[in-house]
Amino acid sequence: MTEAQPVAVAVSTVIFGLREADGEPALHLPLVRRVREPHLGRWALPGGPLAPEESLREAARRNLAATTGLDPRHLEQLYTFGAVDRGGAERLVSIVYWALVRTDEADRTLDDVNVAWFPVEALPPLAFDHDEVVGWAVKRLKAKLEYTRISHALLPEEFTLAQLREVHEAILGRRLDPANFRRRVEATGTVTRTGGLQSGVRHRPPALYRSTARQELLT
Amino acid sequence: MTEAQPVAVAVSTVIFGLREADGEPALHLPLVRRVREPHLGRWALPGGPLAPEESLREAARRNLAATTGLDPRHLEQLYTFGAVDRGGAERLVSIVYWALVRTDEADRTLDDVNVAWFPVEALPPLAFDHDEVVGWAVKRLKAKLEYTRISHALLPEEFTLAQLREVHEAILGRRLDPANFRRRVEATGTVTRTGGLQSGVRHRPPALYRSTARQELLT
Repeated sequence: MTEAQPVAVAVSTVIFGLREADGEPALHLPLVRRVREPHLGRWALPGGPLAPEESLREAARRNLAATTGLDPRHLEQLYTFGAVDRGGAERLVSIVYWALVRTDEADRTLDDVNVAWFPVEALPPLAFDHDEVVGWAVKRLKAKLEYTRISHALLPEEFTLAQLREVHEAILGRRLDPANFRRRVEATGTVTRTGGLQSGVRHRPPALYRSTARQELLT
Repeated sequence: MTEAQPVAVAVSTVIFGLREADGEPALHLPLVRRVREPHLGRWALPGGPLAPEESLREAARRNLAATTGLDPRHLEQLYTFGAVDRGGAERLVSIVYWALVRTDEADRTLDDVNVAWFPVEALPPLAFDHDEVVGWAVKRLKAKLEYTRISHALLPEEFTLAQLREVHEAILGRRLDPANFRRRVEATGTVTRTGGLQSGVRHRPPALYRSTARQELLT
């Protein structure tokens, strides 16, 4: 029951990070410009064929390192896409992972003209069915925001509640009431004060917080 | 970035249904005895190679029909397994779906000595990494039980609250307090009384309920 015919298998990765756009943090992802057919010249998610000796997760990490030079804070399998016609002439099954990188890391500039970060809300036309793939990833990220601590993975170790709120606002694409947000977060017990205050702020510097969960327990 | 080398691709399905065991409903799944190497003679999840002209979901439906003769109430992609050594000599990537069939349908007997339903709590040794796959599926089912109406998919259109509680008990593997369960379910607004009473019960027959969601909205 397991003898399977050859099908092209690729691993692709949707990598989310927060970067400034118009002076505010906005959800971004890096894309790679295709240098061959099909879809030559179009932007696509970082990805490539599954190598013989690597696991699916290793392939995703390899994509991520090659595209951004980063080790992700969060890496998780999203979904496998396998519609009959999605690869064009070849039958292509893509196992997609999604990753979160820290805000300060997402600002790193890549020295490759064929790699660039784009705001999720203003993506160029994408190759293959990658717009559908990004849509799934954004939906999953929004859902996880509600019932996990995943937003912490986008922030430095210590952060203010305003920074945490800005992460939520960037992902949800809408403003949140600061007082309500503070009450809700404090009630969940997912963050705790470090005792420190934000540096570089003279007048009433805001308190710093950290996640109460260890990094590997963020979700 | 998408030219991928050939890897064997299979689709497998974990099919859950409730059947009686020791006089009580218990979570069961059908397995298929392997009639060839590797793992000749072992029980395995229904599955097989991805056919050229079918989508991943169609392949899962085909497995399900071939194994149980059933159309599922719920069918969802679970996860893709691709560890380097999981297929033995060949590199095998398996896209796994999970399905729920109605209790009355899960009682259907299959006319094939190489197909049988087993209680999830008492599975035989499984081929490949299928014990890990089943573990994932059970975990997902339990998680979805908490925040969706997925338990309705295991029941007939009309059911009593005792039947609904038995579904939850069978999946969770523990008893639930009937009064608490009733209060909790009624508070969610996920079920509504049909106005009918359970037939075949002379003394104070219990009320019948149905899901307030359309079938396709169950999850």
